This record gives sequence, structure tokens and C-alpha cells, in this order.
Amino acid sequence: MDLEKIIRDVPDFPKQGIVFKDITTLLQAGDAFRQALNRMMKKYLDEDAGIDKVVGIEARGFIFGGVLAYKLGCGFVPARKPGKLPYRSVREEYTLEYGSNALEVHEDSIRPGERVLVVDDLLATGGTALAAARLVEKLGGEVAGIEFLVELSFLHGRDRLSAYRVHSLITY
Amino acid sequence: MDLEKIIRDVPDFPKQGIVFKDITTLLQAGDAFRQALNRMMKKYLDEDAGIDKVVGIEARGFIFGGVLAYKLGCGFVPARKPGKLPYRSVREEYTLEYGSNALEVHEDSIRPGERVLVVDDLLATGGTALAAARLVEKLGGEVAGIEFLVELSFLHGRDRLSAYRVHSLITY
Repeated sequence: MDLEKIIRDVPDFPKQGIVFKDITTLLQAGDAFRQALNRMMKKYLDEDAGIDKVVGIEARGFIFGGVLAYKLGCGFVPARKPGKLPYRSVREEYTLEYGSNALEVHEDSIRPGERVLVVDDLLATGGTALAAARLVEKLGGEVAGIEFLVELSFLHGRDRLSAYRVHSLITY
Repeated sequence: MDLEKIIRDVPDFPKQGIVFKDITTLLQAGDAFRQALNRMMKKYLDEDAGIDKVVGIEARGFIFGGVLAYKLGCGFVPARKPGKLPYRSVREEYTLEYGSNALEVHEDSIRPGERVLVVDDLLATGGTALAAARLVEKLGGEVAGIEFLVELSFLHGRDRLSAYRVHSLITY
């Protein structure tokens, strides 16, 4: 199955001149959704990689991260926009393609020494994923890998994540 | 396993006087997360319920909805806050415990006659889930059930959803 063909191009979203890669067409196609997830998790299942936590980045990273945590039999940690988490949190600022923001995780969500997978739908400039990786490290965790469905290679986000093991299923 | 005990009370969030049910402590405990999901999906797997789509409500509904769609072998549809979806969408306004808002789904996300499961983490006043159910019906789908992890029964959200088959794992 050619997953790339199932993703829809939406011109001028979120602003003029940007061609948005709309993954909802893949999500809503049950076979494609399942195959994408199976391919994302395969190496971790094969390796028996000892993943303790999956961090999913708000909001689309929750869709993929939840399934990976379920299948790997480990806990799921939501990395959220500021003010969304109810308990004491750690924060990391970042810049992204369309502005700047911050991510937070609960301070007790990851224990020192835990092996953590970071999951999001899209690798663009890499700022969001880098912030998530740094949050893992702030709490003493080890980033075992960073998984994306889609990578926009012309934005060179992978360069910013060169300290980590980065995989993406579909590259434009 | 007593899932109820794993959920954390956070007083005065998001505002003074509210005791917030923090499900992140359940998410991050791999065994509890897995058991909660298995219990949510069991009847649909047992019944061979013929679910065509799972609608997950932004943002925490994505975590549970993604896994249910994966395990039921069907497509996943994100119901999102206004302005987040890139393609042509239908919208439904609703009021909720802490204000008012709207939900949107893509107009091609559900086909007429499809059987759809709506999933969210929390049933409070029921406004959000009712909006999601109405979006399904606007597109000609049939709401086969509405699944929640937690129900705050003292807010009587179930009354507003009386037209539907509603389940929750944990009731306060």
C-alpha cells in the first residue's frame, strides 16, 4: 500500500503559500491507518526494545502515540501546550514553522532511567520534537527514538534532531 | 485492578472549586492504560459490532479513540476545535462545563450509513459528545455507541445523551 498517495495536499493552509499535508485521509482509511502504525512499531517490537514510556505530542501525536504505547505494553505520556496539564509540570520553549510555543509534561510522568519513545505525526523544522526530547531528558529519561508518520525533508528538521534515532514512514 | 484509584484528584483546576480528575496517572501506568482500553473495546470485539469509524474528540479522546480504531480495524476521525482541520468541514456548536466551543469534522470523513463509535476521556455535561454525535448524523452516519473512560454522574451528562448507547468505565 502506497501510504504517500493517501495523504491529501491542502493548499494555503494554515496560511497562503503553504501546502499542508493532511493526514486525516490516512487516518480515516482503516487499512492505511493500521499499516502505518504497524510499520511505525515494527522495529521496537522486533528488537524487544524495552520501551518504558511513549510521549505523544499534542494533538495528532496522541493518535499514533496512544496506539504505540498500547501495543508496546507501556505507559503513555501526553506532551501538551501550556496550561493544559493539571498537575506540576516541566516546560520547554520552542520555535516552529508558523510561530513559537512551549510544551509541558507532568514532572512525575517519566522516571530517571526510563527508555522513552517520542511520537508525532509530522517532522517539519523539528522544534516541537526537540522540545519533547529535552523534556524527557529533564526528567532523567533516555530518548530511545523519535517516530514520525511524515517528514518534510526540505525543512531539514532531522538536522536539529541529529542527537537522536529518528524515523519517518513517509518523506516529501 | 481498581482503575478508579489510579486517577488523580487535582483540586482547583482549571479553576477554583473544581476537583479535576487527572487521567494522566492512568495513561502513564502501562498496565492500567492497557486494561482500560481492553475493557472499553471488549463488547465491540465480542459483538463483532461492524464499526466503520471511530470519532475521537480533541484532544484526550484521540488517545483512546486511536487505539479503539486500530483494534477494531476501522478508520479514525478526529473531531477538532474550530480552525484546526485543513479541509472542508462541518461544525456543531456546544456549551460545556467551563464555557462554550464548537467541534468540526471533515465533510468527507464519514459516509452515509457508516456505523460510528464516538470516544472521549470524560463525560461531564455531555455537550461535547452530543456535538460529536450530531456531526456524525449530519454526515449520514449512525452513532453505534459513545464510550468514555470517566463519567461525572453528578453533572447528568448521560441525560443529554439519552438517545444513544453510552458507556463509561469509571463513574464518580
